[in-house]
Amino acid sequence: MTTEGKVYDIIVIGAGILGLSCAFHLKRNNPGKNILLVDRLSDVGQANTARSNAMFRNTFTSWDNQVLSDTSINFYLEVAKNGIDLGIRKTGYLWVMDERQLSLNERHVQKMIGNGIEIKKYDRADLESALPSLRTRFQDSDQEAKLLKLENVAGAVFGIKCGRLDPDKLSKYYEQQFLTLGGKILFNTNAKSLLLEPNEPLGIEGEPFVWQESRIVGVRLEGAAQSEIRADTVVIATGVWNNEILEPIGIDGHVKAKKRQLFTISARGNKHLSDLIYNSNFNDLKVLPYVILPKSGCYLKALEENNEFWVACEDDLNRPFINTPDPNLENCKAEPSYYEHNVYPILKGYFEEFENSKPSQMWAGLYSYNTLDSIPFVFTESGLIVAGGGSGSGIMKADAMGRIVDAIYRDGEKGEAALYGNVHYPVEKIGFRSRAVQREEWVI
Amino acid sequence: MTTEGKVYDIIVIGAGILGLSCAFHLKRNNPGKNILLVDRLSDVGQANTARSNAMFRNTFTSWDNQVLSDTSINFYLEVAKNGIDLGIRKTGYLWVMDERQLSLNERHVQKMIGNGIEIKKYDRADLESALPSLRTRFQDSDQEAKLLKLENVAGAVFGIKCGRLDPDKLSKYYEQQFLTLGGKILFNTNAKSLLLEPNEPLGIEGEPFVWQESRIVGVRLEGAAQSEIRADTVVIATGVWNNEILEPIGIDGHVKAKKRQLFTISARGNKHLSDLIYNSNFNDLKVLPYVILPKSGCYLKALEENNEFWVACEDDLNRPFINTPDPNLENCKAEPSYYEHNVYPILKGYFEEFENSKPSQMWAGLYSYNTLDSIPFVFTESGLIVAGGGSGSGIMKADAMGRIVDAIYRDGEKGEAALYGNVHYPVEKIGFRSRAVQREEWVI
Repeated sequence: MTTEGKVYDIIVIGAGILGLSCAFHLKRNNPGKNILLVDRLSDVGQANTARSNAMFRNTFTSWDNQVLSDTSINFYLEVAKNGIDLGIRKTGYLWVMDERQLSLNERHVQKMIGNGIEIKKYDRADLESALPSLRTRFQDSDQEAKLLKLENVAGAVFGIKCGRLDPDKLSKYYEQQFLTLGGKILFNTNAKSLLLEPNEPLGIEGEPFVWQESRIVGVRLEGAAQSEIRADTVVIATGVWNNEILEPIGIDGHVKAKKRQLFTISARGNKHLSDLIYNSNFNDLKVLPYVILPKSGCYLKALEENNEFWVACEDDLNRPFINTPDPNLENCKAEPSYYEHNVYPILKGYFEEFENSKPSQMWAGLYSYNTLDSIPFVFTESGLIVAGGGSGSGIMKADAMGRIVDAIYRDGEKGEAALYGNVHYPVEKIGFRSRAVQREEWVI
Repeated sequence: MTTEGKVYDIIVIGAGILGLSCAFHLKRNNPGKNILLVDRLSDVGQANTARSNAMFRNTFTSWDNQVLSDTSINFYLEVAKNGIDLGIRKTGYLWVMDERQLSLNERHVQKMIGNGIEIKKYDRADLESALPSLRTRFQDSDQEAKLLKLENVAGAVFGIKCGRLDPDKLSKYYEQQFLTLGGKILFNTNAKSLLLEPNEPLGIEGEPFVWQESRIVGVRLEGAAQSEIRADTVVIATGVWNNEILEPIGIDGHVKAKKRQLFTISARGNKHLSDLIYNSNFNDLKVLPYVILPKSGCYLKALEENNEFWVACEDDLNRPFINTPDPNLENCKAEPSYYEHNVYPILKGYFEEFENSKPSQMWAGLYSYNTLDSIPFVFTESGLIVAGGGSGSGIMKADAMGRIVDAIYRDGEKGEAALYGNVHYPVEKIGFRSRAVQREEWVI
């Protein structure tokens, strides 16, 4: 395929889940437009999408996150209902809480219920009966629990329309749809920088000058046959690399990258762990739901098909932001000591089954945080539409985000997007000019 | 002086104008506390404070910026009234506007007037009479003006309690006051990184772990006799270097650095330019006020004592954000071509007196932008108080910011600061947890 000399209507940079959703929804609603999706890797969803935990939930404290995730989840469920395997397992999310957390979160839970989010509340007795393995009370004599400051469990909040999916399958689904509609994809193509040109060029070195109206007209490439690709609109969906492509032309990419590590604990040959995977009290799948423990956002996810768990905990203070992430995440490695000293003690504190467990695999990716409010953003600037800020929950909102980017492409920042199920969303709310969102309080 | 083994109550990092104001107000209101101010340079205000344009105004569109600047200016004026030379010249700000700008800004001007900000409005006839040199109308045949898209001038908004000051003198004033109260300063001392320690250390490699409560207990030094200094509270006022010190422990410094260039045009031997400096229609000093032109934020500032102008224009799109500014701003240089192609054409377009003018001096510093809303911030985090985000108007708000940092030190983020003149300000407003400010629209 050649793109030499051709001017596209839209280039989408980044074939992670966000860029894929943007490309698909743009092509779907603008079938006559030539749309090109560009990525520096050799396939879709190969960077942080592939490294993600790929959970989904609609249990957020902010209304915006609720709507973005709920409509996206509904779309994914509908796709699956139509026979496309997205690896969806609706296990539910079990947020185990101590007394203080339960009380602090009560108003959030009430708000969610008021907004129609399906939630079931467990008091301690219910929880002990539904999940007998969970240690809910710690003795004063338990030195380890004391050291870790593990609190007694007071209950749990169970999110029903929550679970996991397969990010590769979802990526492939969007890719297939986009290609079927006539979209084009260029892999192994590094959009190195943005072409900013004056609307009325004078041919003088150093243009555009401050007094010239200018706009982004395409991208400069690295490692491709042609040196640039031009387009009327450029969509930036490069995740943690947003800053890298936007800062050189003086636009804030509004993301902060932080390492997210995941550790696999195999249950093979360990009957206690194997047994923990199965539980008929929470979902139709009769498996353990995704469990978030009361300490340090420590969580465990059962994968019955592999007879294993994925476990991790939050990365907050003392874990550096990474200013300029390397292109292939080569330096982004999981640390065995992080499991040993951070995840393991908490995990074992609540579930004895994990005693002596060691990871069989581990990997790391990068969160793309919007540190301002942990809610994603879409904003425009002189020929650009920039999306990002998934903050650890990007995949579960990707469908809505793609629809918003498309709505902004067609109607600008003052319009509304029709999210899946014809839910109307005023797109200006998640821009930065008139941002009007509540800070998200439930970040894992 | 030795600091070995000593634990300070407070360390303030950064002896620019913000750090100085913080140190002074903290010491003033907490006289019994041991307070240390640290800077890697050899004197106060040597980095971006010294490179600033050092103007002051209370004409902002956001109420918060109005209050922060107005009370700070009142304090500076009071200090000057008491016989301390701060180099204050109350010249006024003359915002020259085209028709569209005048109409767009009318609501902001009305709001300012409603808030008690002294403003005088000029229509075109008034302005032509008060400042005859200003070109207010462009002919269709004026090719240069057409190319530059210079619009006819429709009027001006004149801010009265506005002008310039000497940043060195203001820095020295705060330093002197701080020292007189018994504060200590360590120059040539690079606070390289923050000491983050668990509240209950276990002595295990890799602490603090995620399940440990931890806090900042001091700073690691580079190039000093001792290797670290410990303190109960660390105040970060390092301007564009906020990210550098905060990111390694996973805190967003919330600043974006961008180059700001200033060019000096000498009026020596140029009667037209010399004459332009003097004008008896705007202020008691009988000098030209600070003039902001309708195009690209181009401005000129007359310095009658040097028989010269300082000129510049805005640095928006196409001017890169600088991710990791070098410590001594060695790579931060003004570009002659920037004057020639960007500033000069606009300047000459409105004032013929600048025909053929070339800079006799030029220099560059860095703006420390809060790209979110262009309003400064103060927030706390585990033993830290972080201030910054001056966005090009830091000096004129520095006094209020110091008082806010002190109020937060004493009463936390839920309290109020008493700004100069006993103006009460709820400090939580400019934090990030419950930020409640309107985006500033008048950024130069």
